[in-house]
Order: sequence, then structure tokens, then C-alpha cells
Amino acid sequence: MEHSPIITLTSDFGYRDPFAGIMKGVILSINPSANIIDITHGISPQNIMEAAFAIETSFASFPHKTIHVVVVDPGVGSVRRPILVTTDYHYFIGPDNGVFSRIYNSRHETLSVIHITAEHYFLPGRSSTFHGRDVFAPIAAWLSKGINVMNFGDPITDYVNIRLPAPVMSKENTIEGEVIYVDIFGNTITNIQTQQINELRAIKPGGKMKVVVKGEDVAVKKYYSQAEDKSLYSLINSFGYLELFVRNSSASSDFGITVGDKVSVLLT
Amino acid sequence: MEHSPIITLTSDFGYRDPFAGIMKGVILSINPSANIIDITHGISPQNIMEAAFAIETSFASFPHKTIHVVVVDPGVGSVRRPILVTTDYHYFIGPDNGVFSRIYNSRHETLSVIHITAEHYFLPGRSSTFHGRDVFAPIAAWLSKGINVMNFGDPITDYVNIRLPAPVMSKENTIEGEVIYVDIFGNTITNIQTQQINELRAIKPGGKMKVVVKGEDVAVKKYYSQAEDKSLYSLINSFGYLELFVRNSSASSDFGITVGDKVSVLLT
Amino acid sequence: MEHSPIITLTSDFGYRDPFAGIMKGVILSINPSANIIDITHGISPQNIMEAAFAIETSFASFPHKTIHVVVVDPGVGSVRRPILVTTDYHYFIGPDNGVFSRIYNSRHETLSVIHITAEHYFLPGRSSTFHGRDVFAPIAAWLSKGINVMNFGDPITDYVNIRLPAPVMSKENTIEGEVIYVDIFGNTITNIQTQQINELRAIKPGGKMKVVVKGEDVAVKKYYSQAEDKSLYSLINSFGYLELFVRNSSASSDFGITVGDKVSVLLT
Repeated sequence: MEHSPIITLTSDFGYRDPFAGIMKGVILSINPSANIIDITHGISPQNIMEAAFAIETSFASFPHKTIHVVVVDPGVGSVRRPILVTTDYHYFIGPDNGVFSRIYNSRHETLSVIHITAEHYFLPGRSSTFHGRDVFAPIAAWLSKGINVMNFGDPITDYVNIRLPAPVMSKENTIEGEVIYVDIFGNTITNIQTQQINELRAIKPGGKMKVVVKGEDVAVKKYYSQAEDKSLYSLINSFGYLELFVRNSSASSDFGITVGDKVSVLLT
Repeated sequence: MEHSPIITLTSDFGYRDPFAGIMKGVILSINPSANIIDITHGISPQNIMEAAFAIETSFASFPHKTIHVVVVDPGVGSVRRPILVTTDYHYFIGPDNGVFSRIYNSRHETLSVIHITAEHYFLPGRSSTFHGRDVFAPIAAWLSKGINVMNFGDPITDYVNIRLPAPVMSKENTIEGEVIYVDIFGNTITNIQTQQINELRAIKPGGKMKVVVKGEDVAVKKYYSQAEDKSLYSLINSFGYLELFVRNSSASSDFGITVGDKVSVLLT
Repeated sequence: MEHSPIITLTSDFGYRDPFAGIMKGVILSINPSANIIDITHGISPQNIMEAAFAIETSFASFPHKTIHVVVVDPGVGSVRRPILVTTDYHYFIGPDNGVFSRIYNSRHETLSVIHITAEHYFLPGRSSTFHGRDVFAPIAAWLSKGINVMNFGDPITDYVNIRLPAPVMSKENTIEGEVIYVDIFGNTITNIQTQQINELRAIKPGGKMKVVVKGEDVAVKKYYSQAEDKSLYSLINSFGYLELFVRNSSASSDFGITVGDKVSVLLT
């Protein structure tokens, strides 16, 4: 049995205006079999980095061949290109503004980026201000109907790849990173990943891991409810990132930690 | 292949209470094949005009025969009637409180309004305070199963049609309108539409279009990123309405523009 | 024709982070036929009582065999157990922290609670901090594919059943209850139910019902628009609970009524 093709939506449209609903109508008008799943429409207005993080942490949980549409698009209507990204198992459709930078920088056997130019797949009489409805939704719907990727345009290699804040190994035993995201619970997620901590461990086997934030040591736990009190703690979160938390409270509010704050990991 | 019938939901139920989820349960209990799509549940509490705008800008993006349920219902339980509106290609179900006024005032070949009285299609033991669950959801579900429109009640002509603020041609070369909606990005949408501007152009061909807000001229652009700076600009938006915007910022916050503010278009 | 199995989601994940979307990806990866319906993701962070109320008022509106997943989980990763609750017609999956207390206390012919221990149904390489993704979503998906309940673990009887604030019959003619929930409209819902009022009526037939809040009498209506003015009124709401309201306004804001406030019903 053939299953419904899945199209996910990620945007900064919020939940008051009808914009996300309209995109769904366009998709279903072209492909009534599409199974449309919201990842989130709560990205901060025009915050490309937040959207890049949301799609990076989500896409791999979806079945192979899922089509991920991301519409966070400060440059809508201008020369910024609509693109279609193909990786080993997933498709991504959105503006060429760096929103897929974290996808480019993940490991894939194959990666291709197509500049979408086949305007006959766009909505007729399209506007210059709502490409979610007029360009990205119809392209996703046509792709979900089996139109070949190559029919939508030509491959490009000069797509926008935003340099993300990367943790640096500052001394032999230290990684210096920073906070890149604060979630609804006030957990503050850093850009330091398991992989980098493992590299450090390989250099200094048997070392004890220490996390330092604003000059203070932060104890490392395995899960939230191991925290003994309302101090700041850290753990490796479910996406493999080092995270700072307060048990049943907000690390961000309680300790004033926000995006951009420096965090270090030391092996001693 | 027969596709799942689509039922859209628009309400002021918000995203904290389970009300919208409950309506979905009722629909699926009657018609497990229904494909339920949220347009928005973020309408301001009991704001009929906001809901009227949301459904007007959305419905036509959905496939023919889509059933649109709108539950913004300050008079729930009282004498206000539940209605079913049929246009050329779409169905609308909700309270007879003017929420479909913008549908009545759009162009359709056919338009009929039925007062829903067939109580055997309502939920048994229904309440007086949650018609979304007890009346509108089951009627939508039964309609989606193919029950004929005429089985739900009798046609009426005295349905509530709210007089919407309409732009006026005040002088030979001027349209005076007003702001009717502010979206999540702070873009402020007026009631002046392409059609009216075209009528003005027919009267005064070759004239240069000028937009005036609070005594100040506002330059006209085609899309957001054409704005050179953080001044107030205008464009015709993706729904065909004149809109005031600030590039990558909020026209509403930055310039204190809100619903009801006067906006003029002149051809000079 | 066999219909898609329905899985509902209720959580405190909010609408900004991708967490709910990720759970949907996991479910669809295991069972692409699942029909996933959001009840709400707007539960206040880690508020077990709010989630318990949301699922109690929702579940019965869904078709038989619906699988309800609730992820409000302050103790994630710790010794608190994942459980699967089976009632006459529905399944419930979530943490054993009392979130299903209102289900336990409803009337069912049958009720069984299973401690989920069959780890081969969990996501491989699961984390200690996101059981929504790694435990609850895959268990729901496998259950929706027809895996027998008994395969997920063993029955327990010592599950966490939180004692809910219950109304008391303080005098022969009086029920004393309290506010347990405030909805988006500012309606304040008490724990006094039709059933208890009926018991009171049986004791004192023909008595006139009086509602008292903060020492003031509150008139009883059948529906919202019967209120003559902006005073505080009461009615039996669509879930069978006594509710305090202000017509087209907020009882909570206008009269400072909040969760925990005492409310009495007298028959005189």
C-alpha cells in the first residue's frame, strides 16, 4: 500500500493570521492526498537562525521522502531565489537565505540544491509578498505528486550558507561555545555537541568534565530530575547538544542566560 | 479515487484549551475519513470582523467542496441561528452573526443560506454553551458524508450581513479608506482593493498613485524588500488589499497605526 | 473499509519549539497511516492538573479505540514510569505522574494500567530528556498498528492517582467547591458537577438554587447571552461543571476570580 506523501511546514506566520491554513489549502488543491504536518509556525518573525535550528532538530524524525517546507523569508519578492534541497532521504523547500545552513552542514552522502525556476508550477497570478502560498506550497505539492526534482530548475552551488557560531577548542582541554537557543521551558541550548566533547575526551582520556558559565561551575547531570535544587545544571540534551537547565524552572529567567552567552567545557 | 472531504476550522478558541481538539473528535466520530485543517484558532475573543477577514482571505485557496466551519460566537445558546452557506464551490457553517458577511459580499454565481434546524443531526444531549462541539462540528461531519444541504433546514434571506467599512471615492481623484487588520508582522491592511484603484485609474488614466496616511505621503512599492529604509511604505498585498509596512519591522508599532486609521489613495 | 487509527496529542510543548512536530514525525515513521490530532500543546509548563482536565473533557468526543498521548512530564528521565491505560473504549499513554487521575476517577466498566517496559518498542539510542519522542510517540504508533496491549509491559495497581479537590456537602443544603480552571474567555470552571447538584436536589426537592462567590449571590443562567449586564453570572457548562462568567467579558479579570477560589451552591 502506498502511503500519503508527507509535507511539513515551518514558518514565522504565528497562530493568529490565516497564512499557514492558506498554504494547506493550496497544497490540498494540487494534491488532495498530501498529509500536511506542522512542525511550528512560532518561529520569531524573520528569525532565520531559529528556523534553521527547528528544521535541523526535526527533519530526521520524519519518514524518508518527507518534504519539508520552511517559510521564514525577510527577502520575499526580491532577487533571493526559491530553492529545493535534496539530501539522502529528505527534501527541503524554501528561500535561499541560509535557513537550510544546518542541513548543508550535517553529514549526507548526497546533497543537491536546485534553484526553482519552473514558474508554470507556481500559482497563476502570483503575488510578490506571499511566496509561501504562491511558490513554496505549490512546488511542495507538485513534488509530492511525483514530479521529478530536475523539472523544477537547475542545480546551483552558490546557495547561501550562513556561518554558524561554532565552538572552538581554545586550549588543549577546553571547548568554548555559546548559547544558541532558549526553549519554552527556559532551557538554554548551546552549540557544543556530544561529538566535540568526545573529541576532547579522546585527547584527554579519563578527564573529568566541567562546565563553566559566567565564571561559575555548573554540575553535569543525565536528566532534569537529578538536579538536587534550583541551581543551574547542565546535561547533554535529546538532540546531542549541551544544555543548561534549572529543575522545573527556567534557566533563562532564573540566571539571565540568553542567546550568545559563552559556555565552556573543560576536561580536568 | 475519491479523496477525503476537507473540513476547515476557524475559531477564537486559542491554543490552550482543548475546545478545537474536541470539535475534531466529534467530526471524526461521525466521519473518520474527514481531513480536518486548522485555518486559525487565534481570532481575538468574539471578534466577528477578524474572523470574517480570515475566512474571506482563505477559503478560495481550498479545493472545491471544502466545508469551512467558523466558530466565533458571542451569542451562543441564544436565538441567533446556526446557518449553512453554500456558494458556487464552497460550504460555510457557523453562527448567523455576520461572520460570513465578507462571503456574502464576494462575487458568486450562486449563494444560498440555510437556517440549520434538523436537530437530529446535532449531538444528543447538547449544551447551550458549546455549539462548536454540539451543532457545528456534527453538521459539518454529516455534510462531509454526503447528506444533502436541503436536509439540514430551510433557506432564509434575512441572515445577518454586517455593513463593512467601505472605502469611498471622496473627490474625483481620491479614495478614502481605513485600516481593517494588523497581521503578526505588524503590517496594517486597509480596505482599499486593487479593483477600486483600477476604477480610479480608469477615471484618471496616466495619473501617479499617491498614498497618504496621517497627513504624510507614503511611497508605493511592489514588495517588502524594495523599501530603502525603515520609513513607512505601502504595497498591494497578496490578497489584493493596500497595505502599509516597514521593512523587517512593524508598521503598527513603529508608526502607531491601528485598525480604524484613515488611509487615502490619490491619483495626481 | 478500515479507517486510519487516531492518535491525539496533549502537551506543554507550546507552539514555538518543534517538539510536537518531532513526535508526529516519529509516529508517522512507524505508522504512516496514523491520523494525528492535536488536543492542545498549550498546557502551562509542567502543570499536571491542567493536562488532567484537558484530557478528561476531550477524550470521550473521540471515536472508540482512539489513542491519547499526554506529555506533561516534570519527572522525565527519572524513576517515574511510562504507562499505558486502557478503559472501555480508549487508550491513554503518558508518564505515571497523576496526569490520568481524572480518567481513573471517571466511571468505566474496565480499567487497566500497564507499566510500559518493552524497550524494544522505544526509539533506539533514546535520550533521558525527551520521552515524548523516544518512548510515548513510538509506543502510541506501535499500539496503533495493532500490537497487543499486553506486549508493552505488565499490569500495575500502584499507579499515581492524585487526590483532586472534591466539593463537599458542608450542610444539608450546601455544596462547597472551588475554581479548578480558567479558560481563554476568562470563564472560571468549578469542581461542582451536575451530578452533585442533582444529589442535593434529591435531598431537598423543589429548593431554589443559589450560587455564592466571595460572599455575593451569583444569578444562575442557562447560556451566556441570557446575562442582562456585566455582572458575574453562573451556569452549568458544556462539560457538566458549574462555571462563573461575565457576558462577552472575563469573569477572571473583571472579578479577580482564580484557581482555588471557593464557590458554594445552596438550595433554599
